[in-house]
Amino acid sequence: MNEFKLIDRYFNWACYHSVSLGVGDDCAVIDATLHTQTVTSVDTLIEGVHFPKNTSAADIAYKALAVNLSDLAAMGATPKYFTLALTLPELNEAWLSEFSEALKQLSGEYKLDLIGGDTTKGALSITINIIGEVEVGRALLRSGAEVDDFIYVSNVIGDAAYAWQQIEQGDRPSDFCLERFNRPTPRVTLAQELVGVANACIDLSDGLQQDLSHILKRSKVGANINIDAIPLSDEVSSYINTTQDWCIALAGGDDYELCFTVPEARINALKMIEKNLGMTLTKIGVITTNQSLDIKGLDKTCTSYQHF
Amino acid sequence: MNEFKLIDRYFNWACYHSVSLGVGDDCAVIDATLHTQTVTSVDTLIEGVHFPKNTSAADIAYKALAVNLSDLAAMGATPKYFTLALTLPELNEAWLSEFSEALKQLSGEYKLDLIGGDTTKGALSITINIIGEVEVGRALLRSGAEVDDFIYVSNVIGDAAYAWQQIEQGDRPSDFCLERFNRPTPRVTLAQELVGVANACIDLSDGLQQDLSHILKRSKVGANINIDAIPLSDEVSSYINTTQDWCIALAGGDDYELCFTVPEARINALKMIEKNLGMTLTKIGVITTNQSLDIKGLDKTCTSYQHF
Repeated sequence: MNEFKLIDRYFNWACYHSVSLGVGDDCAVIDATLHTQTVTSVDTLIEGVHFPKNTSAADIAYKALAVNLSDLAAMGATPKYFTLALTLPELNEAWLSEFSEALKQLSGEYKLDLIGGDTTKGALSITINIIGEVEVGRALLRSGAEVDDFIYVSNVIGDAAYAWQQIEQGDRPSDFCLERFNRPTPRVTLAQELVGVANACIDLSDGLQQDLSHILKRSKVGANINIDAIPLSDEVSSYINTTQDWCIALAGGDDYELCFTVPEARINALKMIEKNLGMTLTKIGVITTNQSLDIKGLDKTCTSYQHF
Repeated sequence: MNEFKLIDRYFNWACYHSVSLGVGDDCAVIDATLHTQTVTSVDTLIEGVHFPKNTSAADIAYKALAVNLSDLAAMGATPKYFTLALTLPELNEAWLSEFSEALKQLSGEYKLDLIGGDTTKGALSITINIIGEVEVGRALLRSGAEVDDFIYVSNVIGDAAYAWQQIEQGDRPSDFCLERFNRPTPRVTLAQELVGVANACIDLSDGLQQDLSHILKRSKVGANINIDAIPLSDEVSSYINTTQDWCIALAGGDDYELCFTVPEARINALKMIEKNLGMTLTKIGVITTNQSLDIKGLDKTCTSYQHF
C-alpha cells in the first residue's frame, strides 16, 4: 500500500463544512468569504529522510518553508500565514538562531506571517502548515486537465534527485545540484500567472512520473510524454547520456518545479508569461483519452519515491 | 532558556497581515471577514514524551486531536477543520485502522473536518493543526484578566500527572487516572459558554502554576491562590494527603481543564453555566495587582513541565 492508498483508505471522509477540496490535491480549499477561498497544506521534513544529517540549520529552515510554499504555488494561491511545529533533540541556541534567521528571511520574501507553533523534544523534524488565499474558483487543481492539453514543466528537473543519489552513495554533489536540492525555488509567481491559463497544475515533489499520474487520475485522462523533450540541466543531461538512467528525471523528486497542462488556445498567453518571467517552460507531451501514462523512449520502469 | 523564551527570542516577529494575535496565546487569531476571525493552533505529540510507548493507536489519535481541541476551546472558538502530519516508523494497517477510527469518531463529535495532511517515515509523532472560528473580538484571551477577578478551574486537576508519574515509576495507574491521561475532555462547550463571562482563559496543558502564570504575565497582574481550594479527585486528594506532594496538582500538566478569571459582577452568570452544564467550576483564588503568583499553603517550589 503506497501513501496515496493509505490516505484514501484511512483519512478521506465526508466533510461537515464548506470544504471545496479536502484530502487529495496539493492543498485543501475552504470557502472563506464570497470572494476568497482559504488554501492550506502541511508538510513534514525529517532528518535522514528528507535531508541528510549534516544539513545546515539555515538550509533545513529554507527547505521546510519552501516545500510548503511550493504546495500553495501549485494551487495558484497567495501565501499568507504559517505555523511551525519544531521537534529538536536538544536546545541549541546557535542552531536555533541560524534556523530562525533563514526562516524569517524566506517568509519575508513572500510576506508570510508565522502565527503559531509548538516546540517539542525528539528526533529532528519540522512540520509547517501553510495558509493562503485564492479568488473563488480560481485555484489550479489537479483535476482540470483536458484531452489535447499540452503538458509543460518549468525550468529543468532531476538535479535534486541527482544530488540526493550522490549523497547517498557517499559522493559530493556539485554546488549547483546541492543548491537545487537544499534551496528549491517555490514557483509562486509563475503559478499565479498560470491562473486562467493552465487547466491543471502540480508541483514536482515525488517525481514527474508519480506527480503527473496524480493529474491524470484526478482528471480521468492519460498522457503521452516524449522523453527527449524533458528539460535537463547540462549536468543531469550528461549523467543520463552516460548511464541512460532516465529515472533520475522521471522518478526523482525534490525539484519543486511545476508540471501543468495548457490548452492550445492559451499557448500564446503562456508564451507571454515565459517571456515576462524570463523562465523556460518546456512542452513535454500531450493529454490523451487513454487513461495511462505513456513515456515514449523509455525502455524500463522507474520506481517512484515511496513514503513507506 | 525555557520554551517560552525560546519562542519569544527566535519565532516572534512583526506581521505583514491582519493577525490580531500571533505567537503567544493558546491560538493565533486572524481577521477573516468583518464578522469572524480565524483561530488556529498546532500541537505535536511524540511517543515517549507525550505518551508512553505502549499507548494504543486509538488513545494516541484521541489525545492528539483532543489537545488541539483544547487549545481552540481555551479561546472560546468553534472548531472547524484540521490537518494531520503523521510520522510512522512503519506502515501497519491494523494500527492505522484503529488510529483512523478513533480520529474520525472524535472529530465527528465536534463536526471537525480533516482537510489535509502528510505522512512520513520516522519516529512516531503526530502533529495536528486545528482551525476554528470566533466572532470578531469575542475570543477568550490570556491577556484579559483584571484585578479582583476570581480565578476558576473546571472539574478536578492532577489526575493525568498522577497517572504519568505512576507509569514513569513502572506502576499501573487506576483506570480513572489513566482515562484522564489518555482521554482528556476538551472543554469546548464550557469555553463557548464562557465567552462574554470570563475575562481571561487558558487550558491546563503544562500545569496550573505555569499556565496561570501565562495569564498573569499577559494581563500584567498577579494572583493569590488558596491551595486548599484546588479541586482534586478523591484519588489525587488521598495521594496528596499522604505525601504532601501538591506539585502533582500545581505543576503536573495534561489535564486540559480550563483555568479562567471572572469578575464579581458576572458570578451569577457563571453559576448558571455551571448548573446548565452540570459541571463543577471551583474558585481557587483572586487576581491581584502585585504581578506575582502567591500560593497560600504551599511551602515548597514546584518544578513545572519544561519542553527541553
